[in-house]
Amino acid sequence: MKVQDLIHEKSELTHGKSLPEPIVLSTRIRLARNLEGYNFPDWSNIETRKEVLRLCSNEIIKLKAMKVAEEFDCDQMTETEKRALVERHLISPEFAQMGEGSGVLINEDQSIAVMINEEDHLRIQVLRRGYQFKSAWQEMDELDNQIDERLDYAFSGQLGYLTACPTNLGTGMRASIMLHLPGLVIVGQIEKVIRACSHLNLAVRGIYGEGSDAIGSIFQISNQQTLGESEVEIIKKLTGVLDTVIEQEKNVRNQILAQERVKIFDKIGRAFGILRNAHSVTSDEAMNLLSLMRLAVDLGILPSQYRTIIDSFLIESQPAHIQLMMGEDIKLEHRDSFRAMLLKQKFKEIDSLNFDNIKT
Amino acid sequence: MKVQDLIHEKSELTHGKSLPEPIVLSTRIRLARNLEGYNFPDWSNIETRKEVLRLCSNEIIKLKAMKVAEEFDCDQMTETEKRALVERHLISPEFAQMGEGSGVLINEDQSIAVMINEEDHLRIQVLRRGYQFKSAWQEMDELDNQIDERLDYAFSGQLGYLTACPTNLGTGMRASIMLHLPGLVIVGQIEKVIRACSHLNLAVRGIYGEGSDAIGSIFQISNQQTLGESEVEIIKKLTGVLDTVIEQEKNVRNQILAQERVKIFDKIGRAFGILRNAHSVTSDEAMNLLSLMRLAVDLGILPSQYRTIIDSFLIESQPAHIQLMMGEDIKLEHRDSFRAMLLKQKFKEIDSLNFDNIKT
Repeated sequence: MKVQDLIHEKSELTHGKSLPEPIVLSTRIRLARNLEGYNFPDWSNIETRKEVLRLCSNEIIKLKAMKVAEEFDCDQMTETEKRALVERHLISPEFAQMGEGSGVLINEDQSIAVMINEEDHLRIQVLRRGYQFKSAWQEMDELDNQIDERLDYAFSGQLGYLTACPTNLGTGMRASIMLHLPGLVIVGQIEKVIRACSHLNLAVRGIYGEGSDAIGSIFQISNQQTLGESEVEIIKKLTGVLDTVIEQEKNVRNQILAQERVKIFDKIGRAFGILRNAHSVTSDEAMNLLSLMRLAVDLGILPSQYRTIIDSFLIESQPAHIQLMMGEDIKLEHRDSFRAMLLKQKFKEIDSLNFDNIKT
Repeated sequence: MKVQDLIHEKSELTHGKSLPEPIVLSTRIRLARNLEGYNFPDWSNIETRKEVLRLCSNEIIKLKAMKVAEEFDCDQMTETEKRALVERHLISPEFAQMGEGSGVLINEDQSIAVMINEEDHLRIQVLRRGYQFKSAWQEMDELDNQIDERLDYAFSGQLGYLTACPTNLGTGMRASIMLHLPGLVIVGQIEKVIRACSHLNLAVRGIYGEGSDAIGSIFQISNQQTLGESEVEIIKKLTGVLDTVIEQEKNVRNQILAQERVKIFDKIGRAFGILRNAHSVTSDEAMNLLSLMRLAVDLGILPSQYRTIIDSFLIESQPAHIQLMMGEDIKLEHRDSFRAMLLKQKFKEIDSLNFDNIKT
């Protein structure tokens, strides 16, 4: 399978069943693991990296969960293909920099992606649409045990799992959630929330990763600590904070509806009008417009079946996806026109917005 | 009749028959005249001004063209009513400052407005939708002759008609045209056109009069000179320049369609989407959106029957009009919501824009 084909498949993040918690876009857990007896990838030569890749790939592909998984090797992909996998949250931006000797295994519904020879030998990821730490952790724990039976993990009784970077030592786990917080952004309280999370040792990032603007009011919150606590304790602590953030977002939305009803309806109406009528839309603008449409679904202004369409577009209207759909050598302005056309086609199907029965 | 009622009547500028030259919104000719034996209004006491008002009103109302004319006295109108008449181009902003002893006579289709005791005793105005100097001048010339038969004009064989301000001396005529120049604004050539007009002794103003921004890409061009040339010569010279400006606007539109088709279609599409879906629209934004819709009609993207709807809205979505429709004590944000509702109602009737058969 080529990445061009993969982006047209229904995946967990774009088409997974919709969940009762609309504010959470997706859940991700990843574990860092390394093999005993091999240098970490950055200290290995190319031959060792190729050996590790073959060894891991051959074993992991046999697992039931990875039955029809596909392998994508870094030296076989174009830059655009790699960026498309980053846009789908299947590989990290760091992994996209890798060449020969690195590859990723992606299962059928794109809910599991195992990067081989990123910073560590293995970066095992489980993805879920919505707020699903419990099921994600169950699957991850099983997967990790199964891999452990087939490969010899580097482990210290005192330190836990050994990793290339000490920030991952111990559990090697990073648990994160993608949150849609347009209310907190609109009322200007998002900075306060980010500061509070930092004090609790959590990392908050905009959708494009560290340091970038939070396009589409989408934020990733993850644990920073990996040492001294069990995986379940880490997830429990994280969930406690996330529940508070979700509660704040809900409260702020009610406050906006009570105090600035016309302003928020106006924003949503305009976004809808632009999606239906623009002839050129950049990737960042698309995110911001779709973010308002997602809020419209949450409030009952748009029918709920549009949530999946919007969540797919949030991933599939990004630059590398559009480029793969059109062909690699296409010009920027044509990408923006093509994106506008895709959005228009979908939103033209809706007769009109319904501002009468607002859910809060 | 009250101003509240007048704004709901079909008028020459809002509903006059549409004309072959779409770039010109309206034509206006005004004459400044004064009565022999009375001080100019600014040098008169209140009793004299009242006498002049009665005298002029009584005579002018008898003319055939003014048969069912209405008189609106400045001391009988609220500020909002006066501003609504300014928005309809029936009185000047200066006249709106006047009090007792000043009044305006407006004929049935609002194509003639005679201000009494503005800066001069009489400011006679003839308005036409579209580019109609010839018919406007014919009507004005007749009107002026008829008034001359009934009232004693202050006239000097050497200087012509005497006026309160020397800039009006001679013919006392100001001929002006309201042009819609979105093409020249978009490509950034409007400043060059304004400078060229200034060199030719013509005044160019944005729609809100001197010094303001040109909201909606609408510009008024008028003669500055009133002395040393006949009325017909002034109009002929002005027409020559206007024909050139119109030609330039047409050329620039073709250039935009050839080189920046997506950009202009995108602007028009977005404006349409916002008009149909916004919940709050300020007066200035309405002008800018309607300006793009007017361009859409010119290009064949919107059906031509929308030209009259758009031209009416350009006048009737202005602040004082909205306020008179809603009641004087209404808040600003409610005016913007009401305006959005009016615009939405009208533009919802259109199924979609047609970008396929562009007229150039």
